[in-house]
Amino acid sequence: MSIVETLRAALSSEKVVSEGPLLEERRHDYWVLSHLDDVQDRPAPRPGCVVQPATVDDVVKVVNACREAGAPLIPFGLGSGVCGGVVAHEDAVLIDMSKMNAVRFIDRTNLLAAFDAGKNGGEAEKEVSRRGLTIGHWPQSIDVSTVGGWIATRASGQFSTGYGNIEDIVYSIEAVLPDGSVIEAGKAPRASAGPDLRHLLLGSEGTLGVITGVTLALRRAPEKSARAAFFAKSMADGFEAQRAIIQSGWQPVVLRQYDALETHRLFPESARGDDVLLLVVHEGPAGKVAAEVDGVSAIVKDAGLDEGPLEAVGQWLKDRNHVPTWEAFLKNGVVLDTVEISATWDKIGAIYEGVVASLKEVPGLLAGTAHSSHVYRTGINLYFTFAARPDKPEDMAATYEECWRRIMEATAAGGGGVSHHHGIGRVRKNYLRHDLGDAGIEALRTIKGALDPTGFMNPGVLLPDRTFSLGKEKVGKKKP
Amino acid sequence: MSIVETLRAALSSEKVVSEGPLLEERRHDYWVLSHLDDVQDRPAPRPGCVVQPATVDDVVKVVNACREAGAPLIPFGLGSGVCGGVVAHEDAVLIDMSKMNAVRFIDRTNLLAAFDAGKNGGEAEKEVSRRGLTIGHWPQSIDVSTVGGWIATRASGQFSTGYGNIEDIVYSIEAVLPDGSVIEAGKAPRASAGPDLRHLLLGSEGTLGVITGVTLALRRAPEKSARAAFFAKSMADGFEAQRAIIQSGWQPVVLRQYDALETHRLFPESARGDDVLLLVVHEGPAGKVAAEVDGVSAIVKDAGLDEGPLEAVGQWLKDRNHVPTWEAFLKNGVVLDTVEISATWDKIGAIYEGVVASLKEVPGLLAGTAHSSHVYRTGINLYFTFAARPDKPEDMAATYEECWRRIMEATAAGGGGVSHHHGIGRVRKNYLRHDLGDAGIEALRTIKGALDPTGFMNPGVLLPDRTFSLGKEKVGKKKP
Repeated sequence: MSIVETLRAALSSEKVVSEGPLLEERRHDYWVLSHLDDVQDRPAPRPGCVVQPATVDDVVKVVNACREAGAPLIPFGLGSGVCGGVVAHEDAVLIDMSKMNAVRFIDRTNLLAAFDAGKNGGEAEKEVSRRGLTIGHWPQSIDVSTVGGWIATRASGQFSTGYGNIEDIVYSIEAVLPDGSVIEAGKAPRASAGPDLRHLLLGSEGTLGVITGVTLALRRAPEKSARAAFFAKSMADGFEAQRAIIQSGWQPVVLRQYDALETHRLFPESARGDDVLLLVVHEGPAGKVAAEVDGVSAIVKDAGLDEGPLEAVGQWLKDRNHVPTWEAFLKNGVVLDTVEISATWDKIGAIYEGVVASLKEVPGLLAGTAHSSHVYRTGINLYFTFAARPDKPEDMAATYEECWRRIMEATAAGGGGVSHHHGIGRVRKNYLRHDLGDAGIEALRTIKGALDPTGFMNPGVLLPDRTFSLGKEKVGKKKP
Repeated sequence: MSIVETLRAALSSEKVVSEGPLLEERRHDYWVLSHLDDVQDRPAPRPGCVVQPATVDDVVKVVNACREAGAPLIPFGLGSGVCGGVVAHEDAVLIDMSKMNAVRFIDRTNLLAAFDAGKNGGEAEKEVSRRGLTIGHWPQSIDVSTVGGWIATRASGQFSTGYGNIEDIVYSIEAVLPDGSVIEAGKAPRASAGPDLRHLLLGSEGTLGVITGVTLALRRAPEKSARAAFFAKSMADGFEAQRAIIQSGWQPVVLRQYDALETHRLFPESARGDDVLLLVVHEGPAGKVAAEVDGVSAIVKDAGLDEGPLEAVGQWLKDRNHVPTWEAFLKNGVVLDTVEISATWDKIGAIYEGVVASLKEVPGLLAGTAHSSHVYRTGINLYFTFAARPDKPEDMAATYEECWRRIMEATAAGGGGVSHHHGIGRVRKNYLRHDLGDAGIEALRTIKGALDPTGFMNPGVLLPDRTFSLGKEKVGKKKP
């Protein structure tokens, strides 16, 4: 039997789709290079079939069938990943989790909500919000991503400075491992019961199992929120103010700092000369918010910042979950992307300068800008945006890869970590050793080899190619 | 060559101790059952030798030598573990990390401090404290444990409700894996770069590598602190008040709730009838502490609690790092221990009642009490203390195991997690599947098998015996 026949025999027939528009729609995720390939008429292949499981037992059957048949299995949520974690192949089975989207329970006593992994993030938030609760996890992609995808990519939300990243919000993870066993990782509010197996799945990007269910630790909707905006004379001044805020023990839910170019592009009516714009959102009990507004205000004044335009905060809050489309740019000959990294406070300023300077050397560069959006006691992230229009459209892929290479290499050279929250996928996999080192890569490879000895789970993602040497090989080549 | 000769050839001779009092002192950790074996004249064997490395390179040599010789290798910090994570064997090499105890750096800009893994916890805190900083991690054992041991056991400190557990405080971990490679897990303030390899080592209890260095994310010493104490009519009333505090968005650094018996035993001058005592410590910026004192006070009054004796908070703060000794009790025929578990809010009250009731059925039980000390949005821990004097001294081990069994089984039956922060070691390993399930145990076993195929790293710890069926086999039997 072919794998399609095997799957049809194991699941009901309508769950296994081997022709029609669904296959076309499931060729890849939101990675710019896959969209460029579409625009330039070298589209990624369709998967051999798309399976849409309805139950955990369905997923077990799919995993077992693919493992036994040696068929690559590609997990898919809603396809909003931006790093090439999903690129289909004619021989591959794509497991589309979006039909497994039930609310399992919402528990107001323990502030827990459990969902099937394919639950749309925005819908999940609406479900808890109706009960006076919030997940507190606000990725820009919230309306086009799944709760399972949040786990698989180790996602961050816009309010992470106050509420933590997904690893701080997740309570337990249900997944089907490559051997077909069903694991429930995470049983108690906190445990010292060996290595935390939730972290096997957080960031695994489909390579170590299929996530089928997610239980999240919620918050009550905050009693009060407040906003503030400030201008700093430079990115460095703004970073110092943010460091003072967070290291003094204040924890606004949002701290976002835009360089001057981004301020002019995104907030044209609020921009002021070469100034850097810092937006702040506070949430919590009324007394805490009031104290924090005062505390933060005093710190930023000490740091030499001026009060800024509150409208900018309102505008950001309104527009923050808009997900841009690439096609118009790509058809116009422009490649672009956003790239997030992080570093300690002492290094972030130099990395910002280094990346921006390095991008300027790319022929046809239109923009190389950044904002910060996730703050820690030890450091902060940067979220670069680049856009470039090379002279010839056939150079667009190479230009894209060159911009990525420069951001990755300048970040690593400056001592930063090469990925803050979008994950590795294909676009970053050959830079992963900057973060993990050779020994870390080998440890990960050993674990992958033990749990998935035939390597059928989302091959080509996360782990670097064995033969790759940094900077010598191009990423994104899907057709030899 | 014998393993001792091999090690002497690889390291300088004085680092390899094969006779004398050091071997006697390194037979076991602080596990009650090992102490009972000593008192009852069936002492754990001495290790074949004790190696005291001075450098990471020394550790690599020891790991490679032991792996190649097939000699069990037992990592040892300062021996304050209480679960039997260290029990020596004549054929084993014990690697004593306590001489590798340098401060590598303390970085006030990024709030980071790096130590050799063998650094004494109390000394580490003093080093950063001198610079106006704090680690914020206060296990009761702080003065008799190492920073590497904190990682290996996935420890919690007394201020975890505000400052998080060790996994929230650790920035990076350096370790020698069983294959002799040196991993540095954790490079950036936050990363989405595959599964977080720090979590391979957190809670690994010496089974997946030897931790050689630890970098911790510090805090500035708090500007202000405040204390409060309250009386509740029952454990359930106290839990509801604590739930209201934490779910309202307040986060005191300490919330400790003692049942009536513990209140009378530990705070005899403060106790009030059958009331439960709740101690609170606030720390942070002055404005936040003031707001939090008011916020918490209003919540506990709404919950029907009365103000309590502030002196009890002072007494606890003064005595909190005292580590009791077992010998006097054991020689007097009394077995005792502390056992920490956790559960969601809806389950914790019934688990408290269930465990206390179950312990009362143990012949010779003197005390079965509890306090809570670590609070989460989703639930809370319980820290049970039991003491029992069986009629015959030869029944002491069996009585000890029976008390443990009852706490583990009543916790699991009530839906709680069987270990909050002491770890698994030998005493809990056959209850681990209550938390991880069969699939989780097998996943852990697969990972262990891949990274340490010969199983030489701290054998007998963490993973349950393959042939064990719950409740049928006794733990703690070291001599057949």
